[in-house]
Amino acid sequence: MTSLLNQLIRVVKKPQGIPTADTFKIEQETLSPLAAGQLLIKNEWLSVEPAMRGWLADAQNYASVPVGEVMRALCVGRVLQSRHPDYQEGELLLGWFGWQHYAQCDPDAVVQRITSSTLSPSLYLGVLGLNGVTAATALEQLGQPKPGDTVVVSTAAGSVGSCVGQLAKAIGCRTVGLTSSAAKVKACYDTFGYDAVINYKTDDLHSALSQACPEGVNVYFDNTSGAISDAVMQHLAIGARVVICGTASIPQWNPTPMGPRVERILLTRRARMQGFIIFDHMDTYADYVHQLEQAVLNGQLRYTEHITDGLESALNAISELYQGENLGKRLIRL
Amino acid sequence: MTSLLNQLIRVVKKPQGIPTADTFKIEQETLSPLAAGQLLIKNEWLSVEPAMRGWLADAQNYASVPVGEVMRALCVGRVLQSRHPDYQEGELLLGWFGWQHYAQCDPDAVVQRITSSTLSPSLYLGVLGLNGVTAATALEQLGQPKPGDTVVVSTAAGSVGSCVGQLAKAIGCRTVGLTSSAAKVKACYDTFGYDAVINYKTDDLHSALSQACPEGVNVYFDNTSGAISDAVMQHLAIGARVVICGTASIPQWNPTPMGPRVERILLTRRARMQGFIIFDHMDTYADYVHQLEQAVLNGQLRYTEHITDGLESALNAISELYQGENLGKRLIRL
Repeated sequence: MTSLLNQLIRVVKKPQGIPTADTFKIEQETLSPLAAGQLLIKNEWLSVEPAMRGWLADAQNYASVPVGEVMRALCVGRVLQSRHPDYQEGELLLGWFGWQHYAQCDPDAVVQRITSSTLSPSLYLGVLGLNGVTAATALEQLGQPKPGDTVVVSTAAGSVGSCVGQLAKAIGCRTVGLTSSAAKVKACYDTFGYDAVINYKTDDLHSALSQACPEGVNVYFDNTSGAISDAVMQHLAIGARVVICGTASIPQWNPTPMGPRVERILLTRRARMQGFIIFDHMDTYADYVHQLEQAVLNGQLRYTEHITDGLESALNAISELYQGENLGKRLIRL
Repeated sequence: MTSLLNQLIRVVKKPQGIPTADTFKIEQETLSPLAAGQLLIKNEWLSVEPAMRGWLADAQNYASVPVGEVMRALCVGRVLQSRHPDYQEGELLLGWFGWQHYAQCDPDAVVQRITSSTLSPSLYLGVLGLNGVTAATALEQLGQPKPGDTVVVSTAAGSVGSCVGQLAKAIGCRTVGLTSSAAKVKACYDTFGYDAVINYKTDDLHSALSQACPEGVNVYFDNTSGAISDAVMQHLAIGARVVICGTASIPQWNPTPMGPRVERILLTRRARMQGFIIFDHMDTYADYVHQLEQAVLNGQLRYTEHITDGLESALNAISELYQGENLGKRLIRL
């Protein structure tokens, strides 16, 4: 076991804007013997997140990955060797194991055990993972939707957005999705059950929003920022809640880009804008996973996965996300 | 009583930007006999508010005053004649009596009775009125300051800001005021007890904020918007609350002016921005007035008033407010 050869993706520079393949380098490394208290994990699934752009950016961020480190990522992997009494060989775990074949880590890298025998382990990186829990937590705690509310979601077919739309629909909201292609519009209607869907690349955004949201927007779940959000802000209802969950449409925040000021809208509509990061809410993570598992098992919560094979397919996966080329949760299978 | 001659200020046009004297016209009108159920009020004090610009603007607002009407204003006046059983002649009332000598109105124009014999009735238009209650309600409900928090206030010497600063100080916050002249800096220190005061016209805002808020800004009580707020936003602490109470520094909102986008700051700092309008909180108005009366009587809450005499002195009073020429709550005495 001591002469295992690991293959890993290292961060070799800070990207300008969207990270591309040259942000990373694939390397091989012989693993050293496992230290006491540690686990040796064999990764099976690696996650790709839009948030990775922020983790890699030079600008101040909530979870920065320094140059020289293995790319930070949530993964599903199996315990190959354990030198910690709480973990047994063969257990399947969700954790911060990074973009690599093998991880040697402390137990604090583990987020949860995966014990379901009926659900694919890959779901714990998407609809039952960071994406689904982000959607559920942010919608409930910041969005505070009530039955009858109109809930608008940007990146409506994405792994967070699609979950937000379905959860809002399940509590009796009118759901309106914003997305970027005919295929995604179809997925929003057919798979995720939105009441109305707007293709922001082809539709006139203002008239489409007026038509889709005749009573105004009570909750705007924002994954994009930029021109899409500027349009939605004009349609906020009195007392609206805007959840800032991502800023996917803005390639660079240094220097800060300009946009229409929001202060007067927030004032006259008595509206609220609030940023959300799931890492502040890990104490309720397991509870939300449990709720989401039930919803998936009952067929109330649907998902799509976009899977590619092999570590090297991760190199361009972040930039492909930002080009909107994925349909569903982006995953790497090893 | 039926041949009383009223003098009143009528709105004759929608102003472009800040309302000036030509927005209004002084007229004389003989009062008609009082209708059943109505009150005849003789105004003693008229209020001048920064919010009046918004009430007069063409753009969508929460309390628009149409052309042709008497200028909407809170006033303190005495009941000269009552044809309603709940009100007696001689009572002193706070209400929406308008910029005029006499008001004939229904009881729903009345906000409260003024019964204190020790406090000047004028205070019910300022520190014990819309300004003080706005400060107290918005600070407590939206700002949610905790002891030890750093609370930054724009228009720190103004009738709302000065009250916010003192209330925050009273619960153990570090208070930092932003203001525009040496006289106001002095008032912020000497009268309102701020821990630090920044003159945004002469100080370097970023370095002054860094020095005054070494732990970042937990609550920003914003009455200005614009460049001052853009600077404060850069200094928000994790979990900060931004209360949008006014937008005094922006002369025109149509078309919407551009500014640095706030989404990334709100996201990375998990911060909240929320608009506040006191008219949503009239159910707790009387409770806050009572708290504020106690604080004034105990000497814990200080105030300044800027009084001019005669109805005609109201004509330029709004524009003078926006030029920062007032020191304290702006009032017209009749």
